[in-house]
Amino acid sequence: MRSLRLIIGYDGAAYAGWQRQAGAETIQEHLERAIGSVVGATVTVHGAGRTDSGVHALAQSAHVKVAGGPPADAFHKAVNTVLPRDIRILRAREVGPEFHARFSARGKRYLYRIRTDPVPHPIGRRYAHWFTAPLDPAAMRRAARHLIGTHDFASLATSTGNARKSPTVRTVQSLHVLRRRNGIDIAVQGDGFLYNMVRTLAGTLLEVGRGRFKPDDVVSILEARDRRRAGPTLPAQGLFLVRVLYAGE
Amino acid sequence: MRSLRLIIGYDGAAYAGWQRQAGAETIQEHLERAIGSVVGATVTVHGAGRTDSGVHALAQSAHVKVAGGPPADAFHKAVNTVLPRDIRILRAREVGPEFHARFSARGKRYLYRIRTDPVPHPIGRRYAHWFTAPLDPAAMRRAARHLIGTHDFASLATSTGNARKSPTVRTVQSLHVLRRRNGIDIAVQGDGFLYNMVRTLAGTLLEVGRGRFKPDDVVSILEARDRRRAGPTLPAQGLFLVRVLYAGE
Repeated sequence: MRSLRLIIGYDGAAYAGWQRQAGAETIQEHLERAIGSVVGATVTVHGAGRTDSGVHALAQSAHVKVAGGPPADAFHKAVNTVLPRDIRILRAREVGPEFHARFSARGKRYLYRIRTDPVPHPIGRRYAHWFTAPLDPAAMRRAARHLIGTHDFASLATSTGNARKSPTVRTVQSLHVLRRRNGIDIAVQGDGFLYNMVRTLAGTLLEVGRGRFKPDDVVSILEARDRRRAGPTLPAQGLFLVRVLYAGE
Repeated sequence: MRSLRLIIGYDGAAYAGWQRQAGAETIQEHLERAIGSVVGATVTVHGAGRTDSGVHALAQSAHVKVAGGPPADAFHKAVNTVLPRDIRILRAREVGPEFHARFSARGKRYLYRIRTDPVPHPIGRRYAHWFTAPLDPAAMRRAARHLIGTHDFASLATSTGNARKSPTVRTVQSLHVLRRRNGIDIAVQGDGFLYNMVRTLAGTLLEVGRGRFKPDDVVSILEARDRRRAGPTLPAQGLFLVRVLYAGE
């Protein structure tokens, strides 16, 4: 068996997220079906992590084990001819059998895009959250500083069934609030993220930017370990998985 | 009657261009229908110029004369609630009866976006022409210099029925070849453009960028006044009307 590492870009709008599930169109399922048709076998594609319904990926990582098939460069071109146009394997390369897209990953980088034009422009409307009122990026930056580092992020996570068991401590390695011509980009890198954490982090910074929270409120929000204290979970269409980080990259 | 000037943004993908025509969905028709429903009367929307099928607009200009109706700011919000989401009035303001979106215009600015990523990324795939091979921006810039100024651009225009009668001399005020992370943007401003001229200008520069034409070939291409000498007319999806220019703006 060969092991291939895949870098995948997708427009998440039409999909119920990454993970295969019955009765829903997912990225993983489309990839498995397309790769399966190229290699003539059933395959499992292991992603670095799930993205939720509607979330985009500039560069998701995954690996797949296949018997035979064309060399990596021809492989991804062949698979792309079968994939829907809103999912594309951007690159593929041979990796050792020890590489695992999820367990080998050291971290992830996400981008959350907020646009503040008074009228949402039709160009790009699917690729941002539209908040048509001014935001204060300086206040958002002051708040962001409190989120960098190792913290218990329970307040920013949507609890799942097994929330009590999962540890909610994560390390945010960097968090930038970038002023753009038509809004604000929030760029965050961490060792891992809890369920809905990036979208809730963005929603909490948005509440700071519009003046509903003060920048220092973020400290007590984190300390509370209570999801109800934080800002809203912003919509999926503003969220992009930028890249997955591996040792030595 | 009041006269309103409208700034309009649209994603042209779903439309047969600006101009109203039987049996086709057009931007003008949707605007006239939406404004008509707000003011309760049949209206004519006068655009600064037509854009072709599939061409996008960051900011098209138009004017419309209406009897009554809400003030300009409320007016465009009301119309936007009726318009499809890929057409939006970005701003509206009252203007004097002498303002005519087409006849008062002094020029237009267009952007043609070429992306050169080896695999077209799903994000943004509808908003560029994908040419998945390297281009030489320095050569394109040298060629562009020959196109700036007042010239007979017959070689860059698709001839229409009355081509013999129409003068084909235009003035290109500025033309920039901008290197982007994933490709090249061609930004051009002129007093007016012939049919398909921006897309053919972009196609001619692309032929230079890939080495099929030399930069100085553009001189003899212009002199020939022969459409067959120039490069291809690139697809509509890479073209954006950036803005329409008026005196004093």
